[in-house]
Amino acid sequence: MDLDIKRLQTTLEQLNEYGNEGQGINRLAYTEEEQEAKNFFMELCKKEGMSVRLDTAGNIIARREGQDPSLPAVAFGSHIDTVYEGGKYDGAVGVVAALEVIRSLNDKKIKTAHPLEIISFACEESARFGYSTIGSKAMTGLLSGDYENLRDKDGVYLKEELSKYSLNLEEAKRPKEELEVFFEIHIEQGPALEETGKKIGIVTGIAAPTRFKLLVKGLASHSGTTPMKYRKDALLGASEIALALEEQAMEEEQYDTVATVGVCDVKPGAMNIVPGLVEMKVDIRGVSEESKARVIEKLQSAVEKAEAKRGLEITSTVLAEETPVQLEERVIDSLKETADKLGHSYLLMPSGAGHDAMNMAHLCPTGMLFIPSKDGLSHNPQEYSSIEDIGIGAELLEEEIMKWAKVVKEAER
Amino acid sequence: MDLDIKRLQTTLEQLNEYGNEGQGINRLAYTEEEQEAKNFFMELCKKEGMSVRLDTAGNIIARREGQDPSLPAVAFGSHIDTVYEGGKYDGAVGVVAALEVIRSLNDKKIKTAHPLEIISFACEESARFGYSTIGSKAMTGLLSGDYENLRDKDGVYLKEELSKYSLNLEEAKRPKEELEVFFEIHIEQGPALEETGKKIGIVTGIAAPTRFKLLVKGLASHSGTTPMKYRKDALLGASEIALALEEQAMEEEQYDTVATVGVCDVKPGAMNIVPGLVEMKVDIRGVSEESKARVIEKLQSAVEKAEAKRGLEITSTVLAEETPVQLEERVIDSLKETADKLGHSYLLMPSGAGHDAMNMAHLCPTGMLFIPSKDGLSHNPQEYSSIEDIGIGAELLEEEIMKWAKVVKEAER
Repeated sequence: MDLDIKRLQTTLEQLNEYGNEGQGINRLAYTEEEQEAKNFFMELCKKEGMSVRLDTAGNIIARREGQDPSLPAVAFGSHIDTVYEGGKYDGAVGVVAALEVIRSLNDKKIKTAHPLEIISFACEESARFGYSTIGSKAMTGLLSGDYENLRDKDGVYLKEELSKYSLNLEEAKRPKEELEVFFEIHIEQGPALEETGKKIGIVTGIAAPTRFKLLVKGLASHSGTTPMKYRKDALLGASEIALALEEQAMEEEQYDTVATVGVCDVKPGAMNIVPGLVEMKVDIRGVSEESKARVIEKLQSAVEKAEAKRGLEITSTVLAEETPVQLEERVIDSLKETADKLGHSYLLMPSGAGHDAMNMAHLCPTGMLFIPSKDGLSHNPQEYSSIEDIGIGAELLEEEIMKWAKVVKEAER
Repeated sequence: MDLDIKRLQTTLEQLNEYGNEGQGINRLAYTEEEQEAKNFFMELCKKEGMSVRLDTAGNIIARREGQDPSLPAVAFGSHIDTVYEGGKYDGAVGVVAALEVIRSLNDKKIKTAHPLEIISFACEESARFGYSTIGSKAMTGLLSGDYENLRDKDGVYLKEELSKYSLNLEEAKRPKEELEVFFEIHIEQGPALEETGKKIGIVTGIAAPTRFKLLVKGLASHSGTTPMKYRKDALLGASEIALALEEQAMEEEQYDTVATVGVCDVKPGAMNIVPGLVEMKVDIRGVSEESKARVIEKLQSAVEKAEAKRGLEITSTVLAEETPVQLEERVIDSLKETADKLGHSYLLMPSGAGHDAMNMAHLCPTGMLFIPSKDGLSHNPQEYSSIEDIGIGAELLEEEIMKWAKVVKEAER
């Protein structure tokens, strides 16, 4: 490997000194801790001879000029912000690997026709304001809703933080012409690579969640004096719905669709009272709209069955309904070719979680690489990816970048 | 009907003026409100010529002497205390109906060979001290555990309240020889009478709860990035267990066994996290030990299946394991005969809830009658039983009492 993984590791460790207080890493978006980490990272980019700026959304854009500055940039990156009590790898791996690619090209004095850009997106995590990938949404013009009036758990408005740093999300939108392609390396945050022993995940698409709140109304009654046949047990209805959802998601395995009941609040919640009310929250994700639609259809039929069988009244509210993003075939094929060339085993897989790449895909061809996450853990101080695996990802990224950015031969310079 | 149901209704309304503050009736055991209600009731008994005393557990024992005072007493009653925000019928119906029986016998100048006793038990509800039927347990010698150190929600010890009223639970035990039989009228607290259109429930036995806490441990993981097949979803395991329990309880319908999962707490309880931990509380009740055992067996096999299928670890703790009480066949037969004689339709049914009668059954032959509860509601300000239905119960009780206490014919007096 001609990347310096020791150097990569040192930079990752230095970056993770920012926000490393208390449990895990706390480098929340638009906070002092994150700003200091960004300043540190920008300095490192400048040392590599890059021209560095913050755009009006707070995204770092560090540019290594190309032989032909008029060509669109080949961009790559991830994010520096974390969740509360986050890990050292989610986001950080992508920006540090991107920097290592630049350093390695500099070491080898490789020049490219296209300019290169490291982009570190602002506020990727929804942890602080309940709204994710703000920086890449701003850059791609995908912001929606009354986002400036979002507040964090201390009541601080997003607009206050934006104004503190003189930011303006509206003005951060970039024209399509500026970018040739975008790549992101990220930890998998799931167990598939570890379970299959593959070193690289080549992402085929980014799943979008469709989310429902179900209010299952039965009748609370005495657990001793209510015969089974007279009950309207809301929890049993909820149980049937949860199991039906799982059954359909299992049938959709080839499409990687997943369905989860993560919230199931039972009222009144006493040992001697038949549950009268259950609030469920359902999260369905997939990259195939058709497959997701079948799971949603199964959910609806399970709801109707439970109502009819148990005399329940179930109301369903859509909390989110997002569209999956399919990544471009030619980018996927190119990444496969590069992985084969370098001899790295890979898995074609969807991303179950959202990433900045899903927004960037609306602006330019976009590719995404996963590296293994130990035990599939993320958003957790125990999150871990080995430096060797990060190195493999960075090496693949470097090779891929050289292909898209077109290496300028000595003779042509 | 030769009972005066208007008088019965007036007395019930007067009794329910005690503790009628705020939401519903608050006549908690060993409180001023309950004591005043007891004083009121004792005065009414005295007016009927009864000798009235409080035993050392705080049980009211009002005695109407028989022709032969050496004969064991024919006793009947219920309780005056309520839960927090209780209804006007649970307990109160039984003592007011008992008084109406005495009044009616007095009206008709009917004398009996056996003495008659109205017993109003102290602290039937577990609402205040988390320990139910204290008065009848004291009378029958069934108290167990460190009950004197029980505390109410304000931290007041049971022993403080006992000492305030100069009570001593140990000394309240009565010898078997003193009682011929005990009867209790109570609201059903369930929907069976209303659903079947019957006016009287003749209780065959009193179900005992066996209770378990199950801790279902899976693995919390990201709802988007964890493929279905790698999940260890604790909620889905809990759902299968809850449904298996219901299935077995339905099969035990002829034995009236019931099973309920009333508590199901899901952790971490976020929409985007596969549930890693569920705490379930299971309540299984029945009058047939064999039938209950089959449901418990099914619970255990469902636990094992969920563990094996889903890679969960499930620990089970027994919270309660009580023995059902079968009421004596000859008492049940006698009540059936009386109901037939009076032309009242009846349902043979178990009591799913505990009552003082279950303790009294250890001391003497015991019978229990239910009257319909509107919508099966109890422990609730909406609790309701019609005065006509209470009257039917009281009439049946009077007839039954005359049988057991042996009416003395004019000639024999």
